[in-house]
Amino acid sequence: MGEAGRKKIVIDTDPGIDDAMAIFVALNSPEIEVIGLTTIYGNVYTTLATRNALHLLEIAERTDIPVAEGSHVTITKGTKLRIADFVHGADGLGNQNFPPPKGKPIDQSAAAFLVEQANLYPGKVTVVALGPLTNVALAIQLDPAFPKKIGQIVLLGGAFSVNGNVNPAAEANIFGDPDAADIVFTSGADILAVGINVTHQIVLTEADQNKLALSKGKYAQYLCKILGIYFSYHHEAYSTQAVYLHDPTALLAAVNPSLLTYTEGVVRVQTSGITRGLTIFDNTKKRYGEITEWSDKPTVKVAVTVDAPAIVELVMERLMNS
Amino acid sequence: MGEAGRKKIVIDTDPGIDDAMAIFVALNSPEIEVIGLTTIYGNVYTTLATRNALHLLEIAERTDIPVAEGSHVTITKGTKLRIADFVHGADGLGNQNFPPPKGKPIDQSAAAFLVEQANLYPGKVTVVALGPLTNVALAIQLDPAFPKKIGQIVLLGGAFSVNGNVNPAAEANIFGDPDAADIVFTSGADILAVGINVTHQIVLTEADQNKLALSKGKYAQYLCKILGIYFSYHHEAYSTQAVYLHDPTALLAAVNPSLLTYTEGVVRVQTSGITRGLTIFDNTKKRYGEITEWSDKPTVKVAVTVDAPAIVELVMERLMNS
Repeated sequence: MGEAGRKKIVIDTDPGIDDAMAIFVALNSPEIEVIGLTTIYGNVYTTLATRNALHLLEIAERTDIPVAEGSHVTITKGTKLRIADFVHGADGLGNQNFPPPKGKPIDQSAAAFLVEQANLYPGKVTVVALGPLTNVALAIQLDPAFPKKIGQIVLLGGAFSVNGNVNPAAEANIFGDPDAADIVFTSGADILAVGINVTHQIVLTEADQNKLALSKGKYAQYLCKILGIYFSYHHEAYSTQAVYLHDPTALLAAVNPSLLTYTEGVVRVQTSGITRGLTIFDNTKKRYGEITEWSDKPTVKVAVTVDAPAIVELVMERLMNS
Repeated sequence: MGEAGRKKIVIDTDPGIDDAMAIFVALNSPEIEVIGLTTIYGNVYTTLATRNALHLLEIAERTDIPVAEGSHVTITKGTKLRIADFVHGADGLGNQNFPPPKGKPIDQSAAAFLVEQANLYPGKVTVVALGPLTNVALAIQLDPAFPKKIGQIVLLGGAFSVNGNVNPAAEANIFGDPDAADIVFTSGADILAVGINVTHQIVLTEADQNKLALSKGKYAQYLCKILGIYFSYHHEAYSTQAVYLHDPTALLAAVNPSLLTYTEGVVRVQTSGITRGLTIFDNTKKRYGEITEWSDKPTVKVAVTVDAPAIVELVMERLMNS
């Protein structure tokens, strides 16, 4: 397809090992054009996320893509950040002591960059949000028309009808900033949520890792250096010799939505108490006796099934073919 | 089986149309001995629940069974009660203007009666809790050894991996007193929870209702008078010409646990915010990075599948065979 037909994508990211995979897959996906990265805390603190985003673009020789640094704190502030360094390493990229990047982030916040791009290309920009939703919520607060100007928000977040991964109630990205997530889910934007009920079906095995190691592709070679700690974490937490492809799955949902199926309804986020960060989807089939906190809120799409072999094959192909 | 082999059952109830069905099924179940009814708010206020419990025992000619009146308020007090009169009628029994009962409740609270029975027959008494769990939680507060002295608590409550019926998060009985429910679920008692994910599979159809109407049985005849409003509510709320057999299903789970299958894990209840009354089950398979609110809590059994035709057949048989 021609340049003009390509979907414009901003990746909001907290790299992160599976973020690195998603970014590389994106850069090697002819269907889309990555017009920027915005950074957020989550797998690492925001400062390190920015450093890692710049580093990954240098590895990919794509320093033409701007990086806008995002929020260092949750939208309501005062909330202690939860950083998943035990999943991705202290540096977020497998503790490999990579040299600092040469580039710098642009002189614009992530939220301002998101609003600017949505205004530049109304209805044409997709945000793929791979971390806590603070930057997207800030963009909505900055410009109340943002939900209508942005094309789509594809977000990795939530645990729909399954246990969370931070605790039995909450998935990590939503847990990272529940207030921001509730703002985004109820904003009226075209939202497609990919939760761990779906991404836990997408695994990269040790056999796949061995294939990557044999590949001459620069992405495959790089990833093989950093994947070790990610495999170790999964072995410890889930007793499995494989890793979940959370972020690449969400990215591919933006590239080709037909790889997944969706249900539509209202999602609200619990923002306090023991189930803080829990996502509750209302299928809108039951007529409740009373008005509920879900009543008359905009609906979103939530992924329910996924073509797992197709996703893994696409990820492998796009990581090796470079 | 001989008298001595029968399971001793106390039904904690807020009658309620499906409570009436459950009580009648219980009184016609040779496997169990109903040693008392305790009353609670829910479908009606507690005063009316007591009146209805006495009335139903008079209909059944079983005024030998004691009725102990339960709490009029939630365990933390101050919480406004939610009464489901739009499901069961203002009188809880289909607005039939039944005469007041002749009998009176015993001079003992529901909680005191529960503790007394557990002490009289340690390990031998099953509580079938069909309403909010205030009385059971009060029994635990009255006697911290109650969870170990009671044989089993079979409770109708929770919405596991499905939407609630009060709102998308919460099932009615747990919503009625979330603090009490969390006390009960984490008490260490042998608990078997039957949620609406299971009871929504057990429906009485209009054809079944017609069969009841043709029966000469006193229970069938009585129920046909009161079922109308229950069918109307289900038609309005769920667009179905059938009614859910919530309470009879929980009762039969106590009579014959092999009619259902169970999973075991830790259940906590959210007690505040928009998902107040939500039950979250931890399957204890994932090793979370941090200590969670579910860590090191006692496990309970949660029903996951049910032999629906067998349950409906048993309910029908025991309502007509009298």
